[in-house]
Amino acid sequence: MLTCNKERLQDKITTFSKFGDTGKGGITRLSLSPAALEAREEFCKRCKALGMEIKTDDMANIYATIPGEEKLPAIIMGSHADSVKQGGNYDGILGVLTGLEVAETIVTEKIPHKHPITVVIWTNEEGARFEPAMMSSGVITGKFDKDVMLASKDTEGITFKEALEASGYMGKIENRMSPEKYRALVELHVEQGPVLEDEKIDIGVVEGVCGMINYEFTFTGQADHAGTTPMKYRKDALYAAVKTIQYLHDELDRLDSKLVYTTGKISAHPNIHTVIPDHVKFTLDARHQDPEVINKVLEIIKAIPKMVEKCETSYEKAWSRSTVRFYPEFVDYVEKNAKEFGYSTKRMYSGPGHDAQFITDIIPTTMIFVPSEKGHSHCEKEFTPLENCLKGANVLLQTILDIDKN
Amino acid sequence: MLTCNKERLQDKITTFSKFGDTGKGGITRLSLSPAALEAREEFCKRCKALGMEIKTDDMANIYATIPGEEKLPAIIMGSHADSVKQGGNYDGILGVLTGLEVAETIVTEKIPHKHPITVVIWTNEEGARFEPAMMSSGVITGKFDKDVMLASKDTEGITFKEALEASGYMGKIENRMSPEKYRALVELHVEQGPVLEDEKIDIGVVEGVCGMINYEFTFTGQADHAGTTPMKYRKDALYAAVKTIQYLHDELDRLDSKLVYTTGKISAHPNIHTVIPDHVKFTLDARHQDPEVINKVLEIIKAIPKMVEKCETSYEKAWSRSTVRFYPEFVDYVEKNAKEFGYSTKRMYSGPGHDAQFITDIIPTTMIFVPSEKGHSHCEKEFTPLENCLKGANVLLQTILDIDKN
Repeated sequence: MLTCNKERLQDKITTFSKFGDTGKGGITRLSLSPAALEAREEFCKRCKALGMEIKTDDMANIYATIPGEEKLPAIIMGSHADSVKQGGNYDGILGVLTGLEVAETIVTEKIPHKHPITVVIWTNEEGARFEPAMMSSGVITGKFDKDVMLASKDTEGITFKEALEASGYMGKIENRMSPEKYRALVELHVEQGPVLEDEKIDIGVVEGVCGMINYEFTFTGQADHAGTTPMKYRKDALYAAVKTIQYLHDELDRLDSKLVYTTGKISAHPNIHTVIPDHVKFTLDARHQDPEVINKVLEIIKAIPKMVEKCETSYEKAWSRSTVRFYPEFVDYVEKNAKEFGYSTKRMYSGPGHDAQFITDIIPTTMIFVPSEKGHSHCEKEFTPLENCLKGANVLLQTILDIDKN
Repeated sequence: MLTCNKERLQDKITTFSKFGDTGKGGITRLSLSPAALEAREEFCKRCKALGMEIKTDDMANIYATIPGEEKLPAIIMGSHADSVKQGGNYDGILGVLTGLEVAETIVTEKIPHKHPITVVIWTNEEGARFEPAMMSSGVITGKFDKDVMLASKDTEGITFKEALEASGYMGKIENRMSPEKYRALVELHVEQGPVLEDEKIDIGVVEGVCGMINYEFTFTGQADHAGTTPMKYRKDALYAAVKTIQYLHDELDRLDSKLVYTTGKISAHPNIHTVIPDHVKFTLDARHQDPEVINKVLEIIKAIPKMVEKCETSYEKAWSRSTVRFYPEFVDYVEKNAKEFGYSTKRMYSGPGHDAQFITDIIPTTMIFVPSEKGHSHCEKEFTPLENCLKGANVLLQTILDIDKN
């Protein structure tokens, strides 16, 4: 079977890890920052050397295309090139670089293909400089209002619009990805979790993206002096919160083992060691691929009593996302190709969001996961061995060729 | 029986509530601030009008004295005149104003007394502008190093030394309260808790100040993505903290009903809703009058496992205070006098610290508590009805006269 080239892929990873290098094993490559523009320049230079045609749309998404043998819509691969602050060398950029390596293999090996083949860089996936995340795939698929996005500001007060105009990558709106011009998308990404490595799996066959809900809970008690208020007089909002977190754990643990739920954020007011807290807030993030399980989570939330430990309880939804299912035929291609290479596979749902989850509403889409060492992600320790990156690229190559054939 | 004057006491409370008036029912009168200096000026003016001699020591503590009939050490009453930010009109200042009212009663009624009688204002009891609390009573009783205190800075970078020198109230070190010159101290204070009001008690007969311990607990887990990390892989430091707070409640609730304990402060890192917390800290403040009970609290703390929910646990003592017991004879005087007036009484220990707890190491000391409406304190809602203030002043008057006689 045709494969990609290990040395070339290594060179790509090494080269791009210099753009935004923190000197501590990772990168800070915020969207449209000088480091991100360097990465874009290197990407375009390499694409041009392969004879690819480069276009950008009004959100500065870059599309680099190898012409096809027939007049057909293009097949698209890629991901994002921006990172969080002190992020790693794999999240996002590996999808771009494996896409570029697949394109280079197709060009240098002169592999016949009917459809044009495009490598994409989506602008501002992380939302680390300009909120929200997945901004540009969101705009072109109608999830986000463009004007609102243009007004999004970074911490220095620069708007996304200003950064976009200054980048040199803002193109025409008619260059946006659309179902007429594009037939399919495959995004390779690191898992960002520990499962593949722990279970010694080469390729994650991604069936979709988990539905999720995020709620904020508030407990209101009475602030009193820690030294003067007998226990029986207290309305301790923190203790009410502790009781409720325990209740949520007890109940949620009885649901499906694939459910993940997290209280990541907690705050107490006035947060002074000698004052009984009067206001406490915490969050609950819960994710599962089956909407029925998410509904059960909601029932458990709704069953929280109005008063806990003499404190008032309330909650509100911060946001939610429905389960996204990728194109089943493409999911099967990924699994079949991995197996033909002799790679171990596991069907799974993505917990985090990805640009592909928006694109799938417009054109048939799927994803390929490769392992993340110890599950580290969004940190400088993020790492995927070259061998695994290459396996991912090989599966990507064959999947693109399968889509091209069928 | 001799009593103080209700209208005069009301006038004092009303007048002093103007110094630092927040316009919302309370005051902000940080130590040695312009508002605090206005209160001191009014205090000195009123003392001079009563023929009292005013001295200040090197910590700007003010001593206003009515001469006695004999050459004896003075009996001292009083408290502090500074408040916390947005504090109330009773904490501290009521001890000063009832002292002043007692002095005025003695002077105007020409009540015979052998000992000189002094009203004191202690500087910087709250520690709200310059840490620590009870600074000046602490310095003159050898609890705190004066040079360290002088270097204490407020949020604007002004040192306590600078504020002291600019105040106009810095006097000589030889004016400090000492056992040779002072025979006894009685401090009247608001309870700052709900017990007296709730049990319809007029006078709290304060036997001492509860011993206390304050510990900080740390839980160390692993920060991972909320969406990618199956529950079984997690080391969730917040859940470990929640389990431990519940354990502490379960165990501590089995000890004495007079034990009060509080987790007032909690923090999680990185405190992001989509990240499993890797570091969580919380505090435990526990107070009881019996050192044996405090020892049992320590045993419960020491029994926390080294690992909770796969997270490392650790703790360290932030500070502690041994139980302070006031002079039993004076405690009896307070109780006897209240009963003779027909006031209801309750023997109790103070939860919060007071200047009197330092003074009691040097000269015989006791305290008188009056009720705090709904237990409110350190807030603008702090309130004690005038009737209760007067009852406290009457008991203070008789207690001073008892000490004078015996």
